[in-house]
Amino acid sequence: MEDVKIQLSEKDIPKQWYNIAADLPNLQPPLGPNGKPITPEMLTPVFPMNIIEQEVSTKRWIDIPDEVLEILYQWRPVPLRRAIRLEKFLNTPAKIFYKDESVSPAGSHKPNTAIPQAYYNKVFGIKKITTETGAGQWGSALAYACNQFGLECKVYMVRISFDQKPFRKLMMQVWGANCIASPSDKTEFGRQILKEMPDTPGSLGIAISEAVEDAVHDKTGQTRYSLGSVLNHVMLHQTIIGLEAKKQLEMIGIKKPDIVIGCAGGGSNFAGLTFPFAADKINGADIEIIPVEPKACPTLTRGKFAYDHGDTACMTPLLAMHTLGHAFVPEAIHAGGLRYHGMAPLVCQGVVEGLFTPRAYHQLKCYESALTWARTEGFICAPETSHAIAAAIDEAVKAREEGKEKVILFNYSGHGLMDLSGYNLYMSGKLTDYELPDDILNKSLEILKDLPKPEVKKGKKE
Amino acid sequence: MEDVKIQLSEKDIPKQWYNIAADLPNLQPPLGPNGKPITPEMLTPVFPMNIIEQEVSTKRWIDIPDEVLEILYQWRPVPLRRAIRLEKFLNTPAKIFYKDESVSPAGSHKPNTAIPQAYYNKVFGIKKITTETGAGQWGSALAYACNQFGLECKVYMVRISFDQKPFRKLMMQVWGANCIASPSDKTEFGRQILKEMPDTPGSLGIAISEAVEDAVHDKTGQTRYSLGSVLNHVMLHQTIIGLEAKKQLEMIGIKKPDIVIGCAGGGSNFAGLTFPFAADKINGADIEIIPVEPKACPTLTRGKFAYDHGDTACMTPLLAMHTLGHAFVPEAIHAGGLRYHGMAPLVCQGVVEGLFTPRAYHQLKCYESALTWARTEGFICAPETSHAIAAAIDEAVKAREEGKEKVILFNYSGHGLMDLSGYNLYMSGKLTDYELPDDILNKSLEILKDLPKPEVKKGKKE
Repeated sequence: MEDVKIQLSEKDIPKQWYNIAADLPNLQPPLGPNGKPITPEMLTPVFPMNIIEQEVSTKRWIDIPDEVLEILYQWRPVPLRRAIRLEKFLNTPAKIFYKDESVSPAGSHKPNTAIPQAYYNKVFGIKKITTETGAGQWGSALAYACNQFGLECKVYMVRISFDQKPFRKLMMQVWGANCIASPSDKTEFGRQILKEMPDTPGSLGIAISEAVEDAVHDKTGQTRYSLGSVLNHVMLHQTIIGLEAKKQLEMIGIKKPDIVIGCAGGGSNFAGLTFPFAADKINGADIEIIPVEPKACPTLTRGKFAYDHGDTACMTPLLAMHTLGHAFVPEAIHAGGLRYHGMAPLVCQGVVEGLFTPRAYHQLKCYESALTWARTEGFICAPETSHAIAAAIDEAVKAREEGKEKVILFNYSGHGLMDLSGYNLYMSGKLTDYELPDDILNKSLEILKDLPKPEVKKGKKE
Repeated sequence: MEDVKIQLSEKDIPKQWYNIAADLPNLQPPLGPNGKPITPEMLTPVFPMNIIEQEVSTKRWIDIPDEVLEILYQWRPVPLRRAIRLEKFLNTPAKIFYKDESVSPAGSHKPNTAIPQAYYNKVFGIKKITTETGAGQWGSALAYACNQFGLECKVYMVRISFDQKPFRKLMMQVWGANCIASPSDKTEFGRQILKEMPDTPGSLGIAISEAVEDAVHDKTGQTRYSLGSVLNHVMLHQTIIGLEAKKQLEMIGIKKPDIVIGCAGGGSNFAGLTFPFAADKINGADIEIIPVEPKACPTLTRGKFAYDHGDTACMTPLLAMHTLGHAFVPEAIHAGGLRYHGMAPLVCQGVVEGLFTPRAYHQLKCYESALTWARTEGFICAPETSHAIAAAIDEAVKAREEGKEKVILFNYSGHGLMDLSGYNLYMSGKLTDYELPDDILNKSLEILKDLPKPEVKKGKKE
């Protein structure tokens, strides 16, 4: 009998992160308020310089500090698992593998970057980190990471998730962090939003604005901001997922997967698993790489590739990315981590280059897949993760119909034990599907018309 | 650097369970209503015969069916982990190891017996299983197991936990089970209790009575009852924990631990880890084995070794065990799994024989240990598990004071992600300690005075 868990030993953990920026020479630079590429110095009120250096680096391999590895060992390397019971249920000739990122202390892939970010802030002399969180995965991961390094942590949590997931706040408190609902009355921008839209469910864009404002307004100079997705250094830190997966597939004699899948909100778990495989694809390997997003927030499938702000208050630089417009407030679907108007520029450039083929799913289909998963594999997945599972199931069924023995790999980005209220709504028939109407989308995209336009270029640099 | 996770490969999983009954010849038999030892046949309305055979077996090693192993592989073998960050925090020369049972689909050790129990019921032709649950760990484990084998599952959940932990019910529903608060109006006994004590928080004893009544009253003969602790076959199934741990300690060159610890409610996670080490102790090994219970429900430390019923309605046979009296309703401490009036007879006989040295802790000390754990090791433990952690910390501190390099091993029986409301009460200063007053204890023990008395015998059989 084949093993269902492929374990990499601690000594075989990857010692370097893979930086895909080295292989995407057409990546468009972030622009400052003057419309010109920003300089590292301009980011210093927001991030410590050691992180800024990673953000702008084009070096292909970057060492993981020993102090970071020491903490990652608490749960990494994570198992590569074979979903053998799901395969049987689907009667598919495909082999379905998944990286189990749910085993971290915070229950998702997020600590993979929270730990190095807290570390770099600590060695730079920072005392406090502010951030935002959507579903709560990122906020709890950073709370955990800050606690490990003795840093203060303040989390602005999107109100809809704050209300739906009270236990997420408690998790953050267990690790000593301060978690408040966003929009809040703690920031100028939060107060402004509350005045204009007192009943808003909030959005990641708003929460980012509040967290950035909180950090840059601190007079002591010892507070910085941290982002759990979107930016280059975050994607970099997450590549440990795919690098481990490659080693694990090799251990069982699989040279390459045919299909690699991740759900995509800001892009970090998708990037983490897929970028090391995208590197092979750039070098000619035949791999289909699929980011999956909700139809209610279809950034990659219906958004515009444009320069846009990462936050609602326009405090961040302009990023070249697929976007629904920075004022977009998505419907309250129960996959809080996928409710973001933008997407990691590295992921978007990959879409421009044809490396990734995005798709969007309705939430009922995703919850159906989540239940199928729980009733075959036994584990309860996060609503975000269910998007990747839905795609894996679709691909496995397609393989059956085509009679092909494909290798499917997806990222099991987190467990759903803090998200059972969403399951409850689904099981009681209270959820409906929602597809973003064209007129709302078009109106939301209007905000982009006066902003600079990125160049759309692909292939190797001339 | 030494590994913090010691992984056993799937092929090295133990293929047999260890039955300590073979090494405890003085174990007193269960008695029927007539005061005489019960026969296997008397149990047939409650359990399928293949489980009854295990219950009464004195064979030392019992094969684990392949069909059971196939499902256990979904999470087993579980890692043996070294709590290196806690060791550093305590500045102790002791090495602290723990078996991480939190990685199962249900988040605790409970599926180790839920899976074989569902399997044996299935092959016996049973269609539906009823059970009770305290903290919800057992109910969700059985819900998961029944789902894997296509069995119907009905769970009576102690009301205080049902109210405190709404997500536990949702977990059971995700796996297709029916979960109701106990006492309920679904059984004769439940209705009687509700009439007498409409505001009762419930107890395991009451919930057991309801679940047993539900099973034996089913006219189709296709329903049986399942218990998640206390009985011999449950202890048997859990020994896979300790058997794995022994192999893992051997892998890193440790011949034996000095101290082995488990929290004890009904006894199953304690027994699972410790019985294989108790076997060595019976054969002369110097190992201290410590069951830890709450001072609010001090079965082993202040209860009486007596014949008593396992449930409140006196539907179960009389078991020779430490007990607080079968009508005992414990205070609403936030470790629902440790609120049982009795204890596994095999564990109790071990106490009689001097194999185990029980101790009791206050809940504030346990929550303090849980926070120390979360803020060093990073993971959030179940309130039950915190009792074992508290003892491990005490022993590690003692080792420091004595300057001894002891090896401490404890059972990390489950995670606390569904138990964060207890943490919240603790962190907001709303919990207090409670020690069972002598007068209440003595009154509760009076119920035993007309019941038969067990023989108190130890050592090898003459």
